[in-house]
Amino acid sequence: MTSTNTAKGTRDFAGVELWKRNYLFGEIKAVFLKYGFEPLETPAMENIETLTGKYGEEGDQLLFRVLRSGDFLQGLDDAGLRKEKLRTIRQAIVDKGLRYDLTIPFARFVARYHAELPMPYKRYQIQPVWRADRPAKGRYREFYQCDADVAGSTSLLLDSEFIPMVDEVFGRLSLPPSIFKINNRKILAGIGESLSGHYSLESLTASIDKLDKIGMEGVRSELINRGFSNDDVERIGQFMAIDGNNAEKMHRLAQMLPSGSLGQTGLVELNEVLSYLSNCPLDNTQVQVDFSLARGLNYYTGTIYEVVLKGIDMGSVASGGRYDNLTEGFGVKNLPGVGLSFGAERLYDVMENLGLFPQGVGRHCQLLVINLDEKLNPVYLGLVQSLRKQGVATEIYPAKVKIGKQMKYAEKKGIPYALIAGEPEFEQGKYQLKNLETGHQEAFDLPTLIHQLTA
Amino acid sequence: MTSTNTAKGTRDFAGVELWKRNYLFGEIKAVFLKYGFEPLETPAMENIETLTGKYGEEGDQLLFRVLRSGDFLQGLDDAGLRKEKLRTIRQAIVDKGLRYDLTIPFARFVARYHAELPMPYKRYQIQPVWRADRPAKGRYREFYQCDADVAGSTSLLLDSEFIPMVDEVFGRLSLPPSIFKINNRKILAGIGESLSGHYSLESLTASIDKLDKIGMEGVRSELINRGFSNDDVERIGQFMAIDGNNAEKMHRLAQMLPSGSLGQTGLVELNEVLSYLSNCPLDNTQVQVDFSLARGLNYYTGTIYEVVLKGIDMGSVASGGRYDNLTEGFGVKNLPGVGLSFGAERLYDVMENLGLFPQGVGRHCQLLVINLDEKLNPVYLGLVQSLRKQGVATEIYPAKVKIGKQMKYAEKKGIPYALIAGEPEFEQGKYQLKNLETGHQEAFDLPTLIHQLTA
Repeated sequence: MTSTNTAKGTRDFAGVELWKRNYLFGEIKAVFLKYGFEPLETPAMENIETLTGKYGEEGDQLLFRVLRSGDFLQGLDDAGLRKEKLRTIRQAIVDKGLRYDLTIPFARFVARYHAELPMPYKRYQIQPVWRADRPAKGRYREFYQCDADVAGSTSLLLDSEFIPMVDEVFGRLSLPPSIFKINNRKILAGIGESLSGHYSLESLTASIDKLDKIGMEGVRSELINRGFSNDDVERIGQFMAIDGNNAEKMHRLAQMLPSGSLGQTGLVELNEVLSYLSNCPLDNTQVQVDFSLARGLNYYTGTIYEVVLKGIDMGSVASGGRYDNLTEGFGVKNLPGVGLSFGAERLYDVMENLGLFPQGVGRHCQLLVINLDEKLNPVYLGLVQSLRKQGVATEIYPAKVKIGKQMKYAEKKGIPYALIAGEPEFEQGKYQLKNLETGHQEAFDLPTLIHQLTA
Repeated sequence: MTSTNTAKGTRDFAGVELWKRNYLFGEIKAVFLKYGFEPLETPAMENIETLTGKYGEEGDQLLFRVLRSGDFLQGLDDAGLRKEKLRTIRQAIVDKGLRYDLTIPFARFVARYHAELPMPYKRYQIQPVWRADRPAKGRYREFYQCDADVAGSTSLLLDSEFIPMVDEVFGRLSLPPSIFKINNRKILAGIGESLSGHYSLESLTASIDKLDKIGMEGVRSELINRGFSNDDVERIGQFMAIDGNNAEKMHRLAQMLPSGSLGQTGLVELNEVLSYLSNCPLDNTQVQVDFSLARGLNYYTGTIYEVVLKGIDMGSVASGGRYDNLTEGFGVKNLPGVGLSFGAERLYDVMENLGLFPQGVGRHCQLLVINLDEKLNPVYLGLVQSLRKQGVATEIYPAKVKIGKQMKYAEKKGIPYALIAGEPEFEQGKYQLKNLETGHQEAFDLPTLIHQLTA
């Protein structure tokens, strides 16, 4: 007897939970389409070379690897089959891996077809990804990502457009007001350049990225631990202390960075991105320049963003940025891009916690025809088919069991109406329609009944 | 530099092809919902025990296996690591596999949740499955299945309902008329019982299932090869020669089978399934009793069906049947069910070959705003946002390049209109709207323009 468990960290989705997930994905998708993004779907499995080395050492560890088909030991001899040769063996017996994110498959796709695609190429992708992470609350081994990216353009107008797009998505989902934090990687590099010591940009950004969580004191001690001099830590503290509105922050930073430096370029870019929004009122979103925003992934080279919901302790619910060399690893240069990813699993949790999913979401079936007499099955089926042809999603209970049990079935499925008819009703052409929420019951002829249900 | 190829036998989907696929899946899904089926999604990976032994020896060979995470050699010592111990090694290093079909995950799910689910439980599932088959024309290693099943009821009314459901799906897709072939496994068993020798039901059904392809002469010699006696082959020939309309066929068979036999039970069931259709006109479907229909899979125990399109040489485009013991392998008895699966990949090919996809399917973006002057970017973005707020899916070309290039972009994406406006147009509040199909161009104020595009 086989266990009915799903594989660790993976989930079945059904019933109301799946309706809600599909509603969430559907709203995001509708906005993606409205902004001119086209769908892309890539295979769940990629050749292992497509994936390895793309996500750092940790990512390589977390890849799910698929065994070669057939004689998977083919490339090895008994001498090579030793326990200490784990990595060599793995390399020999594995030829595919499961999709780890949606960015690398997108890059592979664009590198492959860039000559034929409409350029700039705007695609969205809503598909599951797999990571061999330790499962925990809110962390799964199979989860969905919702990405929108534009490849093939340096225009910062594209960077701007993600801001009203997020505003519209979150508005449609009735989410609380959001803070759209924005920064530019070149500004971070500029801050790094303005220090007297030479440090890796990664160690700088990794530290200041934690400002929200550990405060400036925490960042200070982390920087000291990473070998930053006291003077430089002091200077970084001055950058992080810049406050005011967006214009004031940018003005202040411009004064602090050497003219003609990379940091100034970053400021010009950031200013351009924000300037495009001047005619573009946002309903629910506050755009906030944040020089401590760093984003972990190192492929970003320009604009970076991260969106949080006010008063919701959930971390970022959308994030993204601009990159210069999306497809370089696949041998195609000069294809810059910019993209944003919604944290779909987190958004689901927020909406669930706040009760934001619409009542009756996904309720499709409208009517259950109660089975009073199995001899009437052909008549029931005829009736059900007429209703379906008129667009009424209808079910017939397939056997004559107690009416209460049939009503219970309708209730469990969220079917709002029941039709009750036996031989006399069919003869008269009048059917009892029961509203299962209010309990109200009334007899209608078929056209009126259909009108009731489709109005 | 990494290759941009997809893994062997897998495909990227984008552009028109993906719009068409989504249209096809969407139509099938809409009908599933109308008939009261609810969606189910199961994980791509299952524990390997869930999959092995469920699909026969060949199925086990075709499973994609996922390597254990971390130290996958943990359970083995160097003595166990010998090339000849392929299967033992595989068993030790693999703990998950990729979904091979949608039936076993459905069975696992129902076995797990049957106490909570509305019963009978009607679910549809449209998800990819993976098989390590040799790729060939029309055969892929990743492909979609579209299944609808009902678990937990013996009512044959459910078996009947799949017939108008297929009729409706194929009607919506404008497919050619179809032949809905129907039989009952008990009839096949009854034919087996009526023979003088004792043979396995599998060898009988495997042979007669080929009647369509190899003719009765071919079936005869195959039966002889499988050890059937001449007399019995003769008798099978008589069963297969039964013709006439459905009623005549069933009448004739009833005379040939011993009364009270399993075959007679099958006939009664078949008759019942058909009798429920008496008030249920089919638009595009001919229901045909076919005693040679066997279906390969051995878990069917009652009704079996297979649908072909008249004049289309593609094999079956939908198939299914009734089974008694869906969940027995998962320790839950007495959960019979009935289901049907659409051959989505085949249906796609038929529709593509016959040009049945609607013109402009998936065309979502309606308008491209031409970029005449990047200084106007904030004004363009403001305009685009007003249009989007009014429900017009709109794109702005992100950079000022030659107008011809921007028009080409719209054409490639199937965007039907372009809006052309520079400073004077914004000042006057009149915008040139160009129909990219007809070439017609006219100036409108914004409300009229929106009305034009949303009417």
